[in-house]
Amino acid sequence: MLWSMPAIPQRLTRKEYDARVPKLREDLVQLQVQLKESPFKILLIIAGYEGAGRGEVINTLSGWLDPRGVETFAFQEPTDEERERPFMWRFWRSLPTCGRIGIYAGSWYTEALREETFSRITAGEISKELERIQHFEKLLADNGTLIVKVWLHLSKVAQRDRLHALESNPDTAWRVTPEHWYHFRNYDRIARAARRILRSTNQPSAPWTVIDAEHERTRNAAVAKLILTRFRAHCRKHKATTKNLRMAAKPLQPAGLKRLQALPLTQSLSALEYEQKREKWLGRLNQAVRAAHAAHRSVIFVFEGWDAAGKGGAIRRLTSAIDARHYRVIPVAKPTDEEKAHHYLWRFWRHVPRAGMVTIYDRSWYGRVLVERLEGFASTAEWRRAYGEINDFERQIASHGTIVVKFWLQISKDEQLRRFREREATPYKLHKINAEDWRNRRKWAGYEAAVGDMLALTDSSFAPWQLIAANDKRYARLSILKTASKQIEASLGTSIV
Amino acid sequence: MLWSMPAIPQRLTRKEYDARVPKLREDLVQLQVQLKESPFKILLIIAGYEGAGRGEVINTLSGWLDPRGVETFAFQEPTDEERERPFMWRFWRSLPTCGRIGIYAGSWYTEALREETFSRITAGEISKELERIQHFEKLLADNGTLIVKVWLHLSKVAQRDRLHALESNPDTAWRVTPEHWYHFRNYDRIARAARRILRSTNQPSAPWTVIDAEHERTRNAAVAKLILTRFRAHCRKHKATTKNLRMAAKPLQPAGLKRLQALPLTQSLSALEYEQKREKWLGRLNQAVRAAHAAHRSVIFVFEGWDAAGKGGAIRRLTSAIDARHYRVIPVAKPTDEEKAHHYLWRFWRHVPRAGMVTIYDRSWYGRVLVERLEGFASTAEWRRAYGEINDFERQIASHGTIVVKFWLQISKDEQLRRFREREATPYKLHKINAEDWRNRRKWAGYEAAVGDMLALTDSSFAPWQLIAANDKRYARLSILKTASKQIEASLGTSIV
Repeated sequence: MLWSMPAIPQRLTRKEYDARVPKLREDLVQLQVQLKESPFKILLIIAGYEGAGRGEVINTLSGWLDPRGVETFAFQEPTDEERERPFMWRFWRSLPTCGRIGIYAGSWYTEALREETFSRITAGEISKELERIQHFEKLLADNGTLIVKVWLHLSKVAQRDRLHALESNPDTAWRVTPEHWYHFRNYDRIARAARRILRSTNQPSAPWTVIDAEHERTRNAAVAKLILTRFRAHCRKHKATTKNLRMAAKPLQPAGLKRLQALPLTQSLSALEYEQKREKWLGRLNQAVRAAHAAHRSVIFVFEGWDAAGKGGAIRRLTSAIDARHYRVIPVAKPTDEEKAHHYLWRFWRHVPRAGMVTIYDRSWYGRVLVERLEGFASTAEWRRAYGEINDFERQIASHGTIVVKFWLQISKDEQLRRFREREATPYKLHKINAEDWRNRRKWAGYEAAVGDMLALTDSSFAPWQLIAANDKRYARLSILKTASKQIEASLGTSIV
Repeated sequence: MLWSMPAIPQRLTRKEYDARVPKLREDLVQLQVQLKESPFKILLIIAGYEGAGRGEVINTLSGWLDPRGVETFAFQEPTDEERERPFMWRFWRSLPTCGRIGIYAGSWYTEALREETFSRITAGEISKELERIQHFEKLLADNGTLIVKVWLHLSKVAQRDRLHALESNPDTAWRVTPEHWYHFRNYDRIARAARRILRSTNQPSAPWTVIDAEHERTRNAAVAKLILTRFRAHCRKHKATTKNLRMAAKPLQPAGLKRLQALPLTQSLSALEYEQKREKWLGRLNQAVRAAHAAHRSVIFVFEGWDAAGKGGAIRRLTSAIDARHYRVIPVAKPTDEEKAHHYLWRFWRHVPRAGMVTIYDRSWYGRVLVERLEGFASTAEWRRAYGEINDFERQIASHGTIVVKFWLQISKDEQLRRFREREATPYKLHKINAEDWRNRRKWAGYEAAVGDMLALTDSSFAPWQLIAANDKRYARLSILKTASKQIEASLGTSIV
């Protein structure tokens, strides 16, 4: 249907419209009742020419829908909190929760359209931007989101007539601004840009629909009808996801598992050696992080590792080298209900640091391909898809200038047993061990396969995995300080070695 | 205990400290286990002189506590999203949820201390700022929050020695910055300012404790001990809240009820009259809101009223006059679990608009003194306290320049019955009516008393109540457009009448 203008539809007379609206309203509200109980959301993007009535369509729909289940978004100039984070952050933070409708008056297309129209950026840059949009929409659609994208079409003549009509009525004249006429003068450029952008973002999971906006009543009814049609098709398509725990426990990429198992775990440091070297590396890390801060570069640390591998202790040593005003530790436990009502990456996007700040994730998005894979919380399709989604997420952060340091803390199965027993015997460590830890331990081989795949499939130049031999806590802590310092220095191009 | 220096405590030797720490850690973790199940949070504010070891205390405590239940906060320069909202917004957004500990390296005291020390603002301004802090802490404490405020004391000589010691060791020299020495040179001024600020914010519900920070081990142990002591006392004090539904249904302030009942409800507008006037007032409201936007003044609309009073319809007419990019409707329904784990005002603070933007609350914080009062969701003490808390909240918003327009949509009991029946008979309106609406209706007299009290006790010059006769929908909608336009114009001093 894209861009092939639909055959001029029968224009609805006032009488036909009035007769049709009550049923449309009833159907829309029924849709919302059904949606409310569904594990997905609807994103409705209303784009189109100036004067095509984007605002009116949105106001009309808002009047028909139950407003308690709808949020309308528009985007001004990015705030400094937004500018200091990857471009898509502002859209991630705006996403409605499952069961709700988000209506986008402005969206991730607004900037792309403007830039494409006025050639403000190069063709390469615009391709990248469109690719980012494609990935974003695919990621949400893969997760069940229904994405309805509408382009309100208006011929050049119709645009002029619409603006004139509004202007000549003293009661509506305020609706027309000089910006509208500027757009009119650039109609052809905008049309060309829109055609290119719509074509390249017209994906099966997020198709565009062009709606003729010349006739207001017909336009409103068409948008409502489209939402209803797409929703019904979406519900039919929605299949049960399959879980295959047998497959979850087998490696996809044996190379990763080999790399993990090849890591020597016998290195250790005496208390004296550790004391001697610690302050030096704390100082060096402090300098590296301060240099990053001064350069407005953020740092994200990801700590993953076996239960009892020493993540908490390592994080506390690491943070002791960083100004308390500059870092934040995000302990990742069970998601809240707001988090559960979003895509699994939402809760991590939420905490992406501002320019110059440090975020330390104590466990992370890798839960998707570790615990969620092994326990069947994610279907086979979901966790297999996650490697690509995660790479894409990290690429976006890294492209923004953020330094991504990822640690896997590796211990042997015997060492874990020793630590579990120690925890059980030490009153103030007792809270760190529970039945779940023992259950996870029994699935060691399965987790090992999953860790191996993670190492093989998400080890990128922009976010490499750092394997840390952690059987000896002092050795591990010092390795982490060293590795962190060196990776940050290398990223800044300021290695002092 | 405030500012009377505690008798110099026995300094803990390394051996004594090492012997004591395991028990402290165990007790702290036990505290967290108990806190996790409690309906309150702990805020720990660590203030004090430079070099007194605020960062070290926080790092030590973070090492002793289970980091999954702790969040540490520090505050940089406010971001533009923060600057464009009332001062306390950034602290509201930082508050941890119930069951957790928030550690504040910087806090709402940081700015006050700096301003008081260097006399950057007038005595009147500083008093207002301290009053705001008192209100904020009292509000949280009244709601059950345990607030522990620590001032780490260091004599001038001790401060100098500490800085010298750090500087002379090449491994720790990086910890000392020119700012530290600047503070040392201003020791006396800072001491005087701190004394004044601590005295005037030393409330029974949020007392200060001064801890001698000269000896590091003793200092660390003292802070940990203080948290434990305060937590135990807090748990003992925590009584069951009383609910008295009989009292909830009786008016506190009959004047408000009289005002409500005196409102004539017979006015109406013909369809023709409404059509004639609507566009004019929509245009005028549009101009008023655009003028507010241009002046970076925000507008908050509060819509309250009986079930079926026509809030939704009135909001849709109102928003049709506002640029979709500038407003946001917040429908207030059941709180999410993140919201439930906060003070009841948190979910409203969350949506306070940026400069120049409009937020429309479809129901609001007044739920506290309406439904929560009548249904016993809030105890008698809680809803009675709420009038003052709400006035304080609205004063803060209004002082920041936000225009607060509050509507109560009044209909008669008969009119409500008619609308309920109509809703039940109209398929697309059926979702708007349920058993709860009928239940609320049976409590009409009680709700009327509560509405009266609300009108009497929260009708302020900075956030006045606008009573709207809403038996006739057209009349109500036009009244709302008129009232909104006029209040905004008056606030801007740009009335065009």
